[in-house]
Amino acid sequence: MRLSVDPNRVLSDLRELARFGPYKTGVHRPTFSDEDVAARRWFAGKLSEAGLDSSIDGIGNVYGLCPGPGPKILTGSHLESQNHAGWLDGALGMVFALEAARAIGRGVDVAAWCDEEGHFGSFIGSRSFTGLLEEAEIDRLANRYDGTPLRDALARAGLAGVARRQVEPGRYRGFVEAHIEQGANLEQSGLKIGVVTAIVAIWQYRVSATGEQNHAGTTSMARRRDAGLALVRLLGEIDRRFPDLAGPASVWTTGRITLEPGAPSIIPGKASMLFQFRDANPAVLDRLDAELRRLVAEASAHGPCPMEIEVLGQSRPALMDEGLQSLIAAAAERLRPGCSVRMPSGAGHDAQYLARVMPAAMMFVPSIGGISHHWSENTADEDIVLGAEVYCHAVAAALEAA
Amino acid sequence: MRLSVDPNRVLSDLRELARFGPYKTGVHRPTFSDEDVAARRWFAGKLSEAGLDSSIDGIGNVYGLCPGPGPKILTGSHLESQNHAGWLDGALGMVFALEAARAIGRGVDVAAWCDEEGHFGSFIGSRSFTGLLEEAEIDRLANRYDGTPLRDALARAGLAGVARRQVEPGRYRGFVEAHIEQGANLEQSGLKIGVVTAIVAIWQYRVSATGEQNHAGTTSMARRRDAGLALVRLLGEIDRRFPDLAGPASVWTTGRITLEPGAPSIIPGKASMLFQFRDANPAVLDRLDAELRRLVAEASAHGPCPMEIEVLGQSRPALMDEGLQSLIAAAAERLRPGCSVRMPSGAGHDAQYLARVMPAAMMFVPSIGGISHHWSENTADEDIVLGAEVYCHAVAAALEAA
Repeated sequence: MRLSVDPNRVLSDLRELARFGPYKTGVHRPTFSDEDVAARRWFAGKLSEAGLDSSIDGIGNVYGLCPGPGPKILTGSHLESQNHAGWLDGALGMVFALEAARAIGRGVDVAAWCDEEGHFGSFIGSRSFTGLLEEAEIDRLANRYDGTPLRDALARAGLAGVARRQVEPGRYRGFVEAHIEQGANLEQSGLKIGVVTAIVAIWQYRVSATGEQNHAGTTSMARRRDAGLALVRLLGEIDRRFPDLAGPASVWTTGRITLEPGAPSIIPGKASMLFQFRDANPAVLDRLDAELRRLVAEASAHGPCPMEIEVLGQSRPALMDEGLQSLIAAAAERLRPGCSVRMPSGAGHDAQYLARVMPAAMMFVPSIGGISHHWSENTADEDIVLGAEVYCHAVAAALEAA
Repeated sequence: MRLSVDPNRVLSDLRELARFGPYKTGVHRPTFSDEDVAARRWFAGKLSEAGLDSSIDGIGNVYGLCPGPGPKILTGSHLESQNHAGWLDGALGMVFALEAARAIGRGVDVAAWCDEEGHFGSFIGSRSFTGLLEEAEIDRLANRYDGTPLRDALARAGLAGVARRQVEPGRYRGFVEAHIEQGANLEQSGLKIGVVTAIVAIWQYRVSATGEQNHAGTTSMARRRDAGLALVRLLGEIDRRFPDLAGPASVWTTGRITLEPGAPSIIPGKASMLFQFRDANPAVLDRLDAELRRLVAEASAHGPCPMEIEVLGQSRPALMDEGLQSLIAAAAERLRPGCSVRMPSGAGHDAQYLARVMPAAMMFVPSIGGISHHWSENTADEDIVLGAEVYCHAVAAALEAA
């Protein structure tokens, strides 16, 4: 199969998209900001130019639907960015999807899932499409930075009262999303294409210790119940124990530690931390969960500060479709032999929700220095172009297989 | 010597003072709040009633000066409270000083040092009196909670343009301050009077680690430079090493830990902590300082996150006058044999600045449960009364010795 993938068109579309909310060498395009809404309209226009029926639905998803009968493959990613972040995260997958629609010319639907970056909620666009977002949740959600209700943001974008599109049963043979890796595995191994095997589960916790707030000068070390120290000791145990129990791709992170009241001369009476781990293997997730609970219980029993553990979220790993994985790997092998590797995705993506309603797959291109969620995020032009070729050929192959 | 110390007068004055800014069983009387200014005026009135020349100077210090010739002992503490804190911290020392002036009838000057609790600065009242506060610092200071410039607060209290009183050379034979212990040493040993040997030095630091902010899902454990984890490991080393190097009364505290950006799914790129230790022994202070620097340097060299240590303050221990200590101990022994013990003060007090310009001493009464800087702070009435008796006899003895 010969496809008319146009490298210059891909790169120039990406650069044009990066002009919506430019920030240093990246973009600042939060969901439903003026720049984001303008980018959605611009992208809808590009979809129309490509011959698709374009629309923006009541949750902000942008669609380009291929008219006519026959099997369809759904493609896409997201348009908004993290705050002050990179120009390719999401945008790359959107332009690849657009190019696939143009290059293949039939059977390719395109979707930009709204707010993958979570300014208002958690994957509201793809969850809306897959029937997992209730109106009541939309009523409740607000911008996590400035508190703007999601309803107000939707109204401001002209989307109040607009229907939300849901997946049309039987229309799709699968969903394929391209994305930057956001890690350094491809770069470090000199490879160009990551074929995603699964999107990891994220298990998130808040662990809190309760001590006794007291004067840091007059309270002897023996008498103290220092909640901050209790938490530091727990973290030391996690640091010692987790490597033995983790899988080869497991990651665990303490993103925040809060000591109360947080004053230099006051022994913390309360301390809490946000802790998470990720893996694609349910057995590993269960093992890490059990060990965390054991360490917290042990620290709590040992004293002097009782501890509590609260589950903030326990998602499930999303397995990518084996058939689609093979088609991506085969396209990569044909275009650049030996350039691809199978790997899990450590980050969450809309594909994890699409995988609940249809075969889904993801493909990664290298991130320079593994950097993401930062304005300096980048990918070499030649890697972008190779990625677009592989993506379009994989989507075309999926359509043929269908 | 028989002194007419009046227990009921002491207790009723304390209870009346607690009506300025009542909060639960304690008080909320921040420096230059309406309640604090009213308390200063009320106290000045009590000093006048006691036959002293009362005034409030340009930094907010309240003075009651004994007219006439002869040796003088300076007494006092502070009137303002920490936010939502106890009714005795500062107030006890003020009412004891007032009672000493009344009971002894001659030679006792009383001073309430403004803002010992540090709402605007660090010991501005006693530093002003001892010549250690420049006008430029007053220009610069502002309320740490609401940002009100100190100049504005002084003007609002009617003190703009009022002269600041400084110590009159040769007037005083010494300064004696009574205070609640704020710790539990007296209570746990069943003793009633703490004779303070020294006010400890506080050495304060900010330690920062610089890592690489990155995605908590896509960055493998091996590739991470997690600034938060680096700090947690350093704190583990401090926790292991300090007990061997510390003196018996040393205390060390991490009051705040900040991870940046502090999000659940982002590996902290920066982490910092406020760390302090206290001791009255310069050799111990030097040893802990050296060990802290060694551990930071080691962690920094070991990697992967370089660390910096910044000194925020290194005060010096203030030794209390031996002669005055003996007079307090003797008064305690006479009134209640075996009730006193010598001990360092782990908290800072105005006496540490007075000690620079005259012999200074401090006396503690027990704190129930060792609680302070909390509205539930308290001392048994009988302990307050015994403390007032010991205090007045010690001040009288100091006057006689003079």
